[in-house]
Amino acid sequence: MAAVRPVPHVYSSRQSLLVSGEGQRFTAAAMMQCPPFQKRRVVSMGLSEQGPSVAIVGVTGAVGQEFLSVLSERDFPYRNLKLLASKRSAGKQITFEGREIVIEELTEDSFHGIDVALFSAGGSISKKFGPIAVHKGSVVVDNSSAFRMDEGIPLVIPEVNSDAMSHIKLSNKKGALIANPNCSTIICLMAATPLHRHAKVRRMVVSTYQAASGAGAAAMAELEQQTREVLEGKPPTCNIFQRQYAFNLFSHNSAVMQNGYNEEEMKLVKETKKIWSDPDVKVTATCIRVPVMRAHAESINLQFEKPLDEDTARQLLRQAAGVVLIDDRASNNFPTPLEVSNKDDVAVGRVRHDISQEGNHGLDIFVCGDQIRKGAALNAVQIAEKLL
Amino acid sequence: MAAVRPVPHVYSSRQSLLVSGEGQRFTAAAMMQCPPFQKRRVVSMGLSEQGPSVAIVGVTGAVGQEFLSVLSERDFPYRNLKLLASKRSAGKQITFEGREIVIEELTEDSFHGIDVALFSAGGSISKKFGPIAVHKGSVVVDNSSAFRMDEGIPLVIPEVNSDAMSHIKLSNKKGALIANPNCSTIICLMAATPLHRHAKVRRMVVSTYQAASGAGAAAMAELEQQTREVLEGKPPTCNIFQRQYAFNLFSHNSAVMQNGYNEEEMKLVKETKKIWSDPDVKVTATCIRVPVMRAHAESINLQFEKPLDEDTARQLLRQAAGVVLIDDRASNNFPTPLEVSNKDDVAVGRVRHDISQEGNHGLDIFVCGDQIRKGAALNAVQIAEKLL
Repeated sequence: MAAVRPVPHVYSSRQSLLVSGEGQRFTAAAMMQCPPFQKRRVVSMGLSEQGPSVAIVGVTGAVGQEFLSVLSERDFPYRNLKLLASKRSAGKQITFEGREIVIEELTEDSFHGIDVALFSAGGSISKKFGPIAVHKGSVVVDNSSAFRMDEGIPLVIPEVNSDAMSHIKLSNKKGALIANPNCSTIICLMAATPLHRHAKVRRMVVSTYQAASGAGAAAMAELEQQTREVLEGKPPTCNIFQRQYAFNLFSHNSAVMQNGYNEEEMKLVKETKKIWSDPDVKVTATCIRVPVMRAHAESINLQFEKPLDEDTARQLLRQAAGVVLIDDRASNNFPTPLEVSNKDDVAVGRVRHDISQEGNHGLDIFVCGDQIRKGAALNAVQIAEKLL
Repeated sequence: MAAVRPVPHVYSSRQSLLVSGEGQRFTAAAMMQCPPFQKRRVVSMGLSEQGPSVAIVGVTGAVGQEFLSVLSERDFPYRNLKLLASKRSAGKQITFEGREIVIEELTEDSFHGIDVALFSAGGSISKKFGPIAVHKGSVVVDNSSAFRMDEGIPLVIPEVNSDAMSHIKLSNKKGALIANPNCSTIICLMAATPLHRHAKVRRMVVSTYQAASGAGAAAMAELEQQTREVLEGKPPTCNIFQRQYAFNLFSHNSAVMQNGYNEEEMKLVKETKKIWSDPDVKVTATCIRVPVMRAHAESINLQFEKPLDEDTARQLLRQAAGVVLIDDRASNNFPTPLEVSNKDDVAVGRVRHDISQEGNHGLDIFVCGDQIRKGAALNAVQIAEKLL
């Protein structure tokens, strides 16, 4: 594997100071560094005449930046890289793998000759420009919720259901759209699927502890700013969220639907059914935003059709690709959001027999995963790798 | 009702800056102020020859301080007030209701003539001095976990099961012990009991979002200090907890038991059975510490024996003593820990039909309650009020 190259970034004005457990100073760029425990699959050699022509739509956002980082770290092969954003950012330069690339304005003509387009610019941009790119022959990997539940559009977590996209090839130059699931769903199913395959999940009760990053880089900056203000005894600035976030938590900010669930919760319910191709699996969720920067946590209660004991569950999780087991009861060492920040793997712990269920048909688990990485950019790049 | 009097405090060196949603500056003393929405029951007139002789054990702790605040606000009648603490604090003065009271060292002779002793000094102090106080004829209301599960010791949330202590009277001068449940249990059952009485809870899945205050005033100070350090790019000081708490969360710091549950989780499981006198109710819990100062939140999934629809549930919660319903879907306004901080009532919201259960047999709710107040000091003082 080639050494990790310096990673570019454009939003230096928004850089936040974040500190790891060891007290290191992190900037947005440093946050993109990689951990030692990853089982990384190396695909190819970066800039390559044989690689696809790649476009990134929404390159200036938190996920857009992470796309660059992940593509570089994984040596994703590309013949050409086009960076697209709104008119406001057009003309700015990004240094990527030692070359200056000028950001171009996203227009209807942006996708000529593009093989793979990674979208992360919000649902309305995806709805407008996704079909245009597909029409031009691009395979779009879309990080928004615009197409996730559309019939015929694969919704893919590569470790879970890559077969759903097996009919899509770059070689035939026919455009297609593949949807990246919501971050909470990806993190949940990375942990639940190895257990589901073994014992079939009948019902799942999920409570989330979601980071600021899910609401974008500006929300991370607001959490930091508010925290400074609160510590100085000043009123907290509330632009992104309607209430104080520092030293507080609140029900997820997405709209609440007719049935009382918010959109974030319904994504977990519906996307799970689609990804597992199991319309009968029962899911309920309560999604909460907590004052953490960039990794989500989820408390997951599982009911299985077949018996599944703790030890077998731990063994299954240990063997699962993209999952790391942190489950040391003696030293009270379990996954935390800070530990998984900037890391690829989803961490699972607190694996235990649910004493509220009869026999060996229930488990409680606690899961943490980086929202920007596996919850968004990494998963999308892994989807793109499957196309090669 | 008499006006709320100035509230004393001794731990000024530990005062933390906390900010409400409106950006007010809070000190430890100001944090004791009361909200407008409480349905407060006024008992009597403060200092009174007819009142009991009261002792507070552990008066310098976070809960001990809150005892003073709550006694004063509720005009708890007392003939005499004895403030007890360790040798280290003995001799210090506290101004309470305009009078200086000297803190005395807790010894075996402290309980002579004491009618009611409010204990909050940890399990080992309760185990040693609780029986001594009872032997002297005091009724001990104990905030530790030392006696909670002992047969014959009532475990009481006044709104839920005050009948469990109906045989205990001050008038007969026979000492007795009453246990205050764990904070998470109190907050959970304040919301779940009105629904349980109507439809009988068969199973409950709880995920907690627990504040620093549950680990004491020093943990609150550590969270504040760490947050400052992290924002300054310094390594966080970890004295109380073994890992970074600022901008992070972690599995509850109590010991993990043989069955994989930590002690905090098993308190929820066992105390619920005892308080509801229902050994068959099934409970599972995942307890997580979040970077919030003094109020807990809990995501609770309920399975009922009898059908219970959303509207009826909301009506039951609206009518419940000590509960306030905050459940505005249109404006995404639901309970938050910050809102309930320094307030008596437990707030409930996100009341919705659980779509993962058949028929009307399931509900999801989200609950917030002040850990120091209803989770500890207020509940104990309410127990003492029942003795009058």
